[in-house]
Amino acid sequence: MEVENSHIEGNNNNNNNFNNNNNNMVKDVSLQQLKVTLSEFARVRGWEQYHSPRNLLLALVGEVGELSEIFQWRGEVAKGLPNWSPRDKEHLEEELSDVLLYLVQLADVCGLDLGQAALAKIVKNARKYPVINLSD
Amino acid sequence: MEVENSHIEGNNNNNNNFNNNNNNMVKDVSLQQLKVTLSEFARVRGWEQYHSPRNLLLALVGEVGELSEIFQWRGEVAKGLPNWSPRDKEHLEEELSDVLLYLVQLADVCGLDLGQAALAKIVKNARKYPVINLSD
Amino acid sequence: MEVENSHIEGNNNNNNNFNNNNNNMVKDVSLQQLKVTLSEFARVRGWEQYHSPRNLLLALVGEVGELSEIFQWRGEVAKGLPNWSPRDKEHLEEELSDVLLYLVQLADVCGLDLGQAALAKIVKNARKYPVINLSD
Amino acid sequence: MEVENSHIEGNNNNNNNFNNNNNNMVKDVSLQQLKVTLSEFARVRGWEQYHSPRNLLLALVGEVGELSEIFQWRGEVAKGLPNWSPRDKEHLEEELSDVLLYLVQLADVCGLDLGQAALAKIVKNARKYPVINLSD
Repeated sequence: MEVENSHIEGNNNNNNNFNNNNNNMVKDVSLQQLKVTLSEFARVRGWEQYHSPRNLLLALVGEVGELSEIFQWRGEVAKGLPNWSPRDKEHLEEELSDVLLYLVQLADVCGLDLGQAALAKIVKNARKYPVINLSD
Repeated sequence: MEVENSHIEGNNNNNNNFNNNNNNMVKDVSLQQLKVTLSEFARVRGWEQYHSPRNLLLALVGEVGELSEIFQWRGEVAKGLPNWSPRDKEHLEEELSDVLLYLVQLADVCGLDLGQAALAKIVKNARKYPVINLSD
Repeated sequence: MEVENSHIEGNNNNNNNFNNNNNNMVKDVSLQQLKVTLSEFARVRGWEQYHSPRNLLLALVGEVGELSEIFQWRGEVAKGLPNWSPRDKEHLEEELSDVLLYLVQLADVCGLDLGQAALAKIVKNARKYPVINLSD
Repeated sequence: MEVENSHIEGNNNNNNNFNNNNNNMVKDVSLQQLKVTLSEFARVRGWEQYHSPRNLLLALVGEVGELSEIFQWRGEVAKGLPNWSPRDKEHLEEELSDVLLYLVQLADVCGLDLGQAALAKIVKNARKYPVINLSD
């Protein structure tokens, strides 16, 4: 898994929420990075033959099921997960990740750019739900 | 893997959540970027009150359902979606995005770092499924 | 539990898939009845060709998504759905039904008896989770 | 778990808990029967407190995930499941059942009659998709 920050030059982007790589720790993970990593992960294991769109979609549904199981008997859960054990939080992180990893791979085998699609959808949503400024 | 944000020069992009490049094409989108954008998106619309973990989880399940509907009557679908119309591909991009956007928000309200969790899960998977080199 | 079918006398109801009672109110609906009705429903419409197991499974997932959408922004919902409008309840009935109808059809095209399987699973669960009588 | 056969007259079914037929093979299982059985099953175990609508919905989603996992790496599956082992078919029966059992319980705690709702939905679908008789 490679995390290339190599193009970074200079320090003038420190007030940018989206770019946390000066020359420090990796803090940010991109969809492109995950796509490339997962594609290689599957290739070296000979798994590409199983990664048809509908196979990956059903695998995604399976992981959404595992994610739901974590929440199923808890009643309403508060933001920040107060009173959850570190073990439960770690389990949740793993299931959230599994959903993400299959989603990234599904988009990839469909030949779609998930990151750009997500930005475009946010723009579309912003037009659909304009902000109403009550103080105007 | 290119991280184009790193070419940013100057400070003139601090009020732009969607496009963190100056004059290059957007090529990469990070989970952190999406998280910050979506958090602000919800905040300015007064939607934070609705964004409890289980509400977001059920919204995610709803979007997975819409994603599945796109594939439901097609039988097996080939990689790259040959013969799909541009409209169908765009629809698919939107549903993939909706799943992603709720997933990012769910992780956020749970106080978890989805990107780091995803990287950690890939590392864990790599240990679980070591590459077998047949030529050794 | 009343099983009104048992009052059936004679053979004059063999062409009625929806109502297996003679002159009483419909009180009970069986999985076998739904299976036969839905199979005929698909046959006369030429839909059998689309009803492969995975197509029906994805259609089921789609309906589970629609079911989840009904509950997604409500926070915790009390038993009996107090304060839900008749329209909302009817919508919920329709989505619950859609899930059931695809589930019945999925079992059918797989050649499995859903009703008997459900009874067997209840028996298995009863053994797995024995009743603990605290007053003994 | 009580199974009431009280309306049954005749003595030839006395070793069958779930048989609502008079003197034929066991063929049928009703939704009402499942509802009553499951309600009692939960009651005697003290589980009713956990059976809120959204808890049961998430449990249902979890089971749909397990159902999907059975199909996820198989590519297209033919009707009748040729070449599936008895063990795989039994596993599938169990997961189909789990989905059904939670669906029945969800409808029950919502105060809705799933069987009648399903019949009504079939009638609605029949109107929405009329049969076109090409020979007319």
